Amino acid sequence: MNLLLLDDADFVAADRVILRDRRLTHMQEVHRAESGDRMRVGRLGGLMGEGRLLRLDANEAELQVSFDQAPPAKLPLTLLLALPRPKMLRRVLQTVAAMGVPRLVLLNSYRVEKSFWQTPFLEPDAVREQLILGLEQARDTVLPEVIIEKRFKPFVEDRLPALAAGSLGLIGHPGPWPECPRALSEPVTLAIGPEGGWIPYEVEKLREAGLNPVQLGERILRVETAVTALLARLF
Amino acid sequence: MNLLLLDDADFVAADRVILRDRRLTHMQEVHRAESGDRMRVGRLGGLMGEGRLLRLDANEAELQVSFDQAPPAKLPLTLLLALPRPKMLRRVLQTVAAMGVPRLVLLNSYRVEKSFWQTPFLEPDAVREQLILGLEQARDTVLPEVIIEKRFKPFVEDRLPALAAGSLGLIGHPGPWPECPRALSEPVTLAIGPEGGWIPYEVEKLREAGLNPVQLGERILRVETAVTALLARLF
Repeated sequence: MNLLLLDDADFVAADRVILRDRRLTHMQEVHRAESGDRMRVGRLGGLMGEGRLLRLDANEAELQVSFDQAPPAKLPLTLLLALPRPKMLRRVLQTVAAMGVPRLVLLNSYRVEKSFWQTPFLEPDAVREQLILGLEQARDTVLPEVIIEKRFKPFVEDRLPALAAGSLGLIGHPGPWPECPRALSEPVTLAIGPEGGWIPYEVEKLREAGLNPVQLGERILRVETAVTALLARLF
Repeated sequence: MNLLLLDDADFVAADRVILRDRRLTHMQEVHRAESGDRMRVGRLGGLMGEGRLLRLDANEAELQVSFDQAPPAKLPLTLLLALPRPKMLRRVLQTVAAMGVPRLVLLNSYRVEKSFWQTPFLEPDAVREQLILGLEQARDTVLPEVIIEKRFKPFVEDRLPALAAGSLGLIGHPGPWPECPRALSEPVTLAIGPEGGWIPYEVEKLREAGLNPVQLGERILRVETAVTALLARLF
């Protein structure tokens, strides 16, 4: 936790918060914090700044806080991701939040096992928990928007063209495609497939929606690694 | 597993292997393989090619194999990594192997907890297991060399200058440094610090050995994410 992220419910006054949850435990056990310690804080959806620990006991921590700094810029990106397996999903959500992706679409694909859609990790609170871990890691305060699309065809035919309008549309896909471009500053819509990749029909539909395949080399990367590698290359 | 990786002990003839371990289970449970199925195979340290499943029963699988393709090129890189916490270490080893790092030095740092050096995941067999998972993921056959250096100062003073000679020496380090360069083709020696970063003394010693800090932006990334992002940017 590189940033102590606060939400409205934590505030007992404009410059005062009281914490009782996992953040308290983290302060006690990982940071071994003591009264007077200063730490970076952020207000969820708002500014970042500094907190001073006024009081820490077994049940709660009280901090005085002030905010004066904007969170880091987000990437100009909409990321479409075939729904990963549940364990990978949790890590990918953290990575997406940490890397500064502002909008994530979790999408069905032929190679997404149907059972993946049943995972409790897709519940809004579970998604939010992982996103917050990513924001705390990277020092950001703004939650990415997460859109869940269980049906590939209607999404790609009906909604994707408008979503991708005005952006460079790319599909990260192993194969004989152009190399993934580098150091872009324009908006990008990037689609990353499941383990095993998009099937040809899906690539065709994504192309019709204006996205074109690019590759990162012959190595097949896990989804989480591919997300990080593509974003680091693109921006 | 995108590549079935074989070692000498698997061969019962020049073109025939028998498998009884986790690879058998994987074929049965994940691939639901049947006699006659073809799959990509690689010989550890050697070529890649194709296998044909001759026989699969509860106890063993027999394949006919042929090899005709070189594994993918490695990156021109020596990666120095402050020893990550054990759980992260396992994933980082997979990532390092998957991304094509040929040489990894696991190094001490002030911010590496002493207990991390006691983990069974540093045993040679445990390291090798994770590296093999990375090779199987990415389709590569050549194990990275892993060097374990429990003492920072003697390594950085006495061995690093020779190890880094003739390469561009970089330290991935948050702060007011030049941006990490892109699309290099020259050899690189890259040092990535622990959670919390190298301390100033360590940065100074690394600089004396010819490495210079570069940054990827203001976001603080987990070690595994930082490794992937830096390699994707550099090469």
